[in-house]
Amino acid sequence: MALWAGMSMAGVAQAAEPVDLDMVAKIRSEALHRSQAAANLKELTETIGPRLTNSPNYTQASAWARGKLSGWGLSNVHDEVYDPAFGRGWAFRASRVEMLSPRQLPVHALPKAWTRGTDGPVEGEVVLASFKTLEDIEKQRGKLRGRIVLVDEARAYKPSEKTDFRRYSEAELGELQTFPMPEDTAPDAQQKRLDEYRKRIALSKALNTFLAEEGVLATLSISSWDNGIIRATGGGARKAGEPVGVTELVLPAEHYNPLVRAVQGKQPVRLRIDVDSAFTSEQDLPATNTFAEIPGSGKVDEVVIIGAHLDSWHTGTGASDNGAGVVVMMEAMRILKTIGAKPRRTIRLALWGGEEQGLHGSAGYVARYLADYPEPTDPEQKALPRAYQRGTGPLQRRRGYDRFSTYFNFDNGTGRIRGIYAQENHAAVPIFKAWLEPFNDLGASIVTTRNTGSTDHISFDRVGLPGFQFVQDPADYFTHVHHTHLDTYDHVVPEDLKQAAAIIASFAWHAAMREERLPRKPFVERDAQ
Amino acid sequence: MALWAGMSMAGVAQAAEPVDLDMVAKIRSEALHRSQAAANLKELTETIGPRLTNSPNYTQASAWARGKLSGWGLSNVHDEVYDPAFGRGWAFRASRVEMLSPRQLPVHALPKAWTRGTDGPVEGEVVLASFKTLEDIEKQRGKLRGRIVLVDEARAYKPSEKTDFRRYSEAELGELQTFPMPEDTAPDAQQKRLDEYRKRIALSKALNTFLAEEGVLATLSISSWDNGIIRATGGGARKAGEPVGVTELVLPAEHYNPLVRAVQGKQPVRLRIDVDSAFTSEQDLPATNTFAEIPGSGKVDEVVIIGAHLDSWHTGTGASDNGAGVVVMMEAMRILKTIGAKPRRTIRLALWGGEEQGLHGSAGYVARYLADYPEPTDPEQKALPRAYQRGTGPLQRRRGYDRFSTYFNFDNGTGRIRGIYAQENHAAVPIFKAWLEPFNDLGASIVTTRNTGSTDHISFDRVGLPGFQFVQDPADYFTHVHHTHLDTYDHVVPEDLKQAAAIIASFAWHAAMREERLPRKPFVERDAQ
Repeated sequence: MALWAGMSMAGVAQAAEPVDLDMVAKIRSEALHRSQAAANLKELTETIGPRLTNSPNYTQASAWARGKLSGWGLSNVHDEVYDPAFGRGWAFRASRVEMLSPRQLPVHALPKAWTRGTDGPVEGEVVLASFKTLEDIEKQRGKLRGRIVLVDEARAYKPSEKTDFRRYSEAELGELQTFPMPEDTAPDAQQKRLDEYRKRIALSKALNTFLAEEGVLATLSISSWDNGIIRATGGGARKAGEPVGVTELVLPAEHYNPLVRAVQGKQPVRLRIDVDSAFTSEQDLPATNTFAEIPGSGKVDEVVIIGAHLDSWHTGTGASDNGAGVVVMMEAMRILKTIGAKPRRTIRLALWGGEEQGLHGSAGYVARYLADYPEPTDPEQKALPRAYQRGTGPLQRRRGYDRFSTYFNFDNGTGRIRGIYAQENHAAVPIFKAWLEPFNDLGASIVTTRNTGSTDHISFDRVGLPGFQFVQDPADYFTHVHHTHLDTYDHVVPEDLKQAAAIIASFAWHAAMREERLPRKPFVERDAQ
Repeated sequence: MALWAGMSMAGVAQAAEPVDLDMVAKIRSEALHRSQAAANLKELTETIGPRLTNSPNYTQASAWARGKLSGWGLSNVHDEVYDPAFGRGWAFRASRVEMLSPRQLPVHALPKAWTRGTDGPVEGEVVLASFKTLEDIEKQRGKLRGRIVLVDEARAYKPSEKTDFRRYSEAELGELQTFPMPEDTAPDAQQKRLDEYRKRIALSKALNTFLAEEGVLATLSISSWDNGIIRATGGGARKAGEPVGVTELVLPAEHYNPLVRAVQGKQPVRLRIDVDSAFTSEQDLPATNTFAEIPGSGKVDEVVIIGAHLDSWHTGTGASDNGAGVVVMMEAMRILKTIGAKPRRTIRLALWGGEEQGLHGSAGYVARYLADYPEPTDPEQKALPRAYQRGTGPLQRRRGYDRFSTYFNFDNGTGRIRGIYAQENHAAVPIFKAWLEPFNDLGASIVTTRNTGSTDHISFDRVGLPGFQFVQDPADYFTHVHHTHLDTYDHVVPEDLKQAAAIIASFAWHAAMREERLPRKPFVERDAQ
């Protein structure tokens, strides 16, 4: 081993990251002793309810948030369109399914979003059909008129050996701080993903067209989780002009499996279905994000953003996903405002729309203000969602790109903050460690270099900007509530919201006050990934 | 310490309990390789469904069981009335609840058994009222016409720290073999229990009368478990002539709590309710048990009984409680018949009714054939259920009492047999240990001297006759299925049914063949307890 001249640990030592403990104390006092987070979550989820993007409830929720934020004296409170034609509005009021034979049973069932209602009660015989390929569809042509179609196989009950609700153990937190070696990406992975996407879209459009033409009454599918939980997202068609298909219902495994077994056992199965759902607009509506600010003084053009998504799925009330994030982020702003924080950089709150359909709100914001790849000219590329587009040239940086400091996101359910994912931004690690220290006593301590995905910080991360999601206790996010009808207020832990709001207010404050913007990690162009 | 002459361990040593390993091998072969238990459970739960005592489904289930048992060539297959006027039949077909304001939401709700339907959809304002005492009722008089009444407080969500589905660990099985010292019974415990019973019954009758007179639309109560599970038993009135009250629905906590919070927050809450349920008889119907036998040869008058309860609650399909027991016990009989077993004592199968309302079927059988306390003459005592009667004299033993050997019961869900509760019958311990030995490799090994209750072996135990329930793995009995709408076929583990049927067939065989009847434990008269 050689030792290079001049190289020593001292040569890379860094100045200690300053932490303003006076501000931490003020933040903690307001956050822990005078929290409004849970009360706000109750209003958001129980007075307004679920918030499907572009639904009337979503509009109501934006107005509610703006009212609160303005009331707290925050600046520049406004909605902003990120997509002028995101999709149609949709809402559902009722969903009744009853088994008429082989025996009588009220069946628990909820519709997928953006699907048709039944226009009053309809009755039909239940049959089983699989639609995995275009050929599958052709095989069924002429056979399904007036039928209710089971589109999934029965699935054996899988007893869970995990506790329903858990917090990370010290051992798990330790494990989380190791970095798993990434697997090599197959050279054709991108092409494969694209092919699969195209196939899936083509199949879905063909199927919806077929089901409507064929006069199928409804399709039923099995919830992806057991134990009576209905886990349902979107179906039908969000965009005006696309084939909507028929009523699509999701049933708990306990009610779905017996239908399959009865049909397979040649028992005649009849159901009555009455789904009262409706598109609330004929045309695609513009979709909006909601913003509020504490303006900076000094580095007023530079910005620190904290955010969560205001939209939710429709079967629960979107309490954990992501009402918790919404009220925590609003609360962080309220705390800073209440204690009279005057940051150097502007602290902006973003409540995103369209997250559940693919991070649309945050991606739209980033594309407009921070950076984006050029629009494709090739019509085939043009037809693809942005995430699938390639080969249109290097990233175009907007005016705001250099002035942007960092984005913090909270969207892993109710779980208390245990640390933060540094997303391989190694220079950020010591900074976050320092910022977390005054919250170690509240259980937040680890900085993992790991990446985490699936929510709005990714919109920043993928254009090379610092965007982070916190490490949160799993709680019952992936056992009960994620995209399920049980995602309701009762499953959120008020104490966790208080802790999260304190930490995020402090992170936003320190990011807004430090001498430099947050360091950035190496950026790799889309086409080179 | 003194050593008494003649006293030694050898003096109490017992001859080894004989085990017929040839029969065990035959039983295991049929039970494990050619089981019909799961297929029968599917028929019972999915073609017939739940089996509320005296409902049309119960009648259908008895007929189904008799058909199977006769088909297997069993003897003396018949139903027998244990109560000529047990109660009315009841069934429900549909249960729809929709929130109309403050927002629109399909509410999951199921009725209590023996309650009124709504005769079509009704709408009303939701109010909160508590009915813990007769005075509570008077306070509400004149205030509730046309209202829907929440009768419970909201209940905070309690995250579970246990796994949903579990098997006993070796440590837990070890612990189960210790005998916890009984606490002293308070001298007035019996009187207290009786007073509480009388109060409860008086309150329930007064409340039902009041609710109907007042013109309340329905009462809503909270399920006793979280996580979307509806746990519901009986309400209204089973007996003709008793005040039925109004529609009574049970809601999951996730749908109940928001109603309470909205009402408490002075938001006007309106619901539409449509419950299609009906009493299927005007008068109390006779209630029956179902029996089948393999007649003994030699000790033909002596009897070994194996049993489970055929009745269930109505919201699920009674698969774990106690469809599993029914098909396991039927299967044990089928196995013995199929392998040509010719027992010395008669082996009788009993499928009990009315277990869920208080072990009525087994208690009726025991009273008629084995032993009972004299009927009270005092009208106040006469009005009490048998379990509360006292002071009517010593136990009257019937002809069958001395000829009875033992009763085995299976009613703790799907869980695999891990051993047996000896109910403080210490002389039975070495016998059971010997009988379990050839099933140690299937996980069944422990004999605990502990008592277990709450099911039909108690009807035998309380008249001093040997009656036993097996130690079963907890599975998800007390997390998901016990008296809930999730008590369905999918939550039963077919392998567990096979194991249980093998063990019970062998226990029945050995009990029927051994030289002596099963030993009995000291008997304490009812009035002396």
